[in-house]
Amino acid sequence: MRKLTHKELQEVRKTQVQMESTVRFPIISIIDNVRSLYNIGSIFRTSDGACIEKLILTGFTPTPPRKEIDKTALGSTNTVPWEYSESPITIIKKLKSNGYKIIVVEMTTSSKQYSKLKMNNFPCCFVFGNEIIGVSPEIIELADLCIEIPMHGSKHSLNVAVAYGIVLFEAVRILNLKK
Amino acid sequence: MRKLTHKELQEVRKTQVQMESTVRFPIISIIDNVRSLYNIGSIFRTSDGACIEKLILTGFTPTPPRKEIDKTALGSTNTVPWEYSESPITIIKKLKSNGYKIIVVEMTTSSKQYSKLKMNNFPCCFVFGNEIIGVSPEIIELADLCIEIPMHGSKHSLNVAVAYGIVLFEAVRILNLKK
Repeated sequence: MRKLTHKELQEVRKTQVQMESTVRFPIISIIDNVRSLYNIGSIFRTSDGACIEKLILTGFTPTPPRKEIDKTALGSTNTVPWEYSESPITIIKKLKSNGYKIIVVEMTTSSKQYSKLKMNNFPCCFVFGNEIIGVSPEIIELADLCIEIPMHGSKHSLNVAVAYGIVLFEAVRILNLKK
Repeated sequence: MRKLTHKELQEVRKTQVQMESTVRFPIISIIDNVRSLYNIGSIFRTSDGACIEKLILTGFTPTPPRKEIDKTALGSTNTVPWEYSESPITIIKKLKSNGYKIIVVEMTTSSKQYSKLKMNNFPCCFVFGNEIIGVSPEIIELADLCIEIPMHGSKHSLNVAVAYGIVLFEAVRILNLKK
């Protein structure tokens, strides 16, 4: 067992042109009112790794180009399809009418564990909200499902970019089960 | 469906005293030569959320107290058992002789997907390495298993704190299946 060399890693990487014709996982992510530039960059990088359809930044979530975003996105702002919209509500209603399940990541009175997602929850639009106050009640009203990551320690939440990675890669794991 | 209030969230949180008597998941994490203070803080917060036995910082990985670590750890440096050691090798050999499987997170010639972990891979010690050059060959030689997170996009890796969250919560998901 030995580490793959930089050359070996480069050889299996898809180019930007290849990415344009790649079949993406049926996932759209909305990031609403997340303030941290470094977290947004990291969310871009994770969105590239999970090969989602689109990343939608809404509210006061910052957008590229910003040097702090680039620092953690490492070029993925060029490979992930993304857009900005001031309000997430119109987008959510449109996605819902197009058959996307709206899955809000938030601790509510009836959130399911994130690991209980099933194939029939896709295509989906995950919604992540502000680091402190979470997702707004108006968005929760539109949700088909709320999910949460069970916390086993003394804190009640994770860093938003870490939570994003856990939820997206669990979704990808589930979608890959059918293959 | 409504958001849980701050009071409701507080009520289910474990106190630091309760954490001391909590049964922890049979996981130890070694973070070797990771430079970013914010990532280390985030790794503490995730380690609290996954309720692992211990976090071991080695090499030039920074240690608390540092204000940048505290900013992202949000108090979890007080709830996660942790220690520092200059070299990870002695610790890994000792854990191995105590029955811990050494699971290195690295892209190697024979890494398995992280989602293929089984109950008999525990108790385990996960090893995460430097943001740029990864885990050292000396550590890989001691590994019982190397795992990787499959990358579906154009980049070959994730942010280290995000990768840490994905691997740890997958381990917790698997360990919870037996319940």
